[in-house]
Amino acid sequence: MDENEYPGITGPMRFRPETAKPLNELAEVLLRGPHSLSPGERELIAAYVSGLNECSFCCSSHSAFAAAQLDAGMELVERVRADLDSAPVSAKLRALLRIAGTVRDDGRKVTAELVAAAREEGATDLEIHDTVLIAAAFCMYNRYVDGLGTLAPEGSEPYAKSARRIVDFGYLV
Amino acid sequence: MDENEYPGITGPMRFRPETAKPLNELAEVLLRGPHSLSPGERELIAAYVSGLNECSFCCSSHSAFAAAQLDAGMELVERVRADLDSAPVSAKLRALLRIAGTVRDDGRKVTAELVAAAREEGATDLEIHDTVLIAAAFCMYNRYVDGLGTLAPEGSEPYAKSARRIVDFGYLV
Repeated sequence: MDENEYPGITGPMRFRPETAKPLNELAEVLLRGPHSLSPGERELIAAYVSGLNECSFCCSSHSAFAAAQLDAGMELVERVRADLDSAPVSAKLRALLRIAGTVRDDGRKVTAELVAAAREEGATDLEIHDTVLIAAAFCMYNRYVDGLGTLAPEGSEPYAKSARRIVDFGYLV
Repeated sequence: MDENEYPGITGPMRFRPETAKPLNELAEVLLRGPHSLSPGERELIAAYVSGLNECSFCCSSHSAFAAAQLDAGMELVERVRADLDSAPVSAKLRALLRIAGTVRDDGRKVTAELVAAAREEGATDLEIHDTVLIAAAFCMYNRYVDGLGTLAPEGSEPYAKSARRIVDFGYLV
């Protein structure tokens, strides 16, 4: 596909707009729709899962999108990705990130204990549902981007630029 | 979620219609939209990936959906799932299924050789793109269904019944 001149997921999405539409709608609902978790917290879940999947384009993109929408910025994103146990996030978000990391590995490994731990920290059914689906969805987006051999730009500026566009306009433009 | 009284993906989709909409739209475009691969061939890719992921509900569902739309029926689905190398499918479909199985494992493992082998058997860019995305998407659906601990009905009749509904009405109803 000549669309590989576009970075990351952009090329395949231009090549196949019929599938790009629901893929972008899913990202918009999950990461930016009305929610008790902030867009920054949800992008952090996406960045965390993409990092575990070692998908360079998605991890750099969603780390930048999370950093742009979290008060603690990229330092927090990097601490979560480096060591979830010691990262300065709320107990609820840590419990949700643990569920996300488990879903990434294998959905069947999400135990009643993991879910109960999140509930004890105040996580709602919707927050748990969406955490599972964000993690599952990034197991798709990561494989889509890497399976088609797309290019991940180097450096942080291309991703910071994309972050400004996502924060201002979202995934549907 | 009380929606767990519904089997498989049905419960979470009733719980969260905002995400069910793009999830169903993606399945409809990928598995039933206008295409050079038949719906049965595309459902076979979905069943094959779901089997490798050991997702009981999705594998039983999409095996039934494939069988209902392939002349060779469930016997062919089971032969593909048991041993892709010896299953009586076209050389093109075998090459695409090999790409799908590789995407399931890790998108980065899809080599230029795997893609070239599919092209040599006549696979188009669109067929390769959609094979990668079907495989990636079922890495999402499988984790969604299993990560939320949903129930998979036993026996074949519930899945055969769902197959009749999918063949007649698709994923959007």
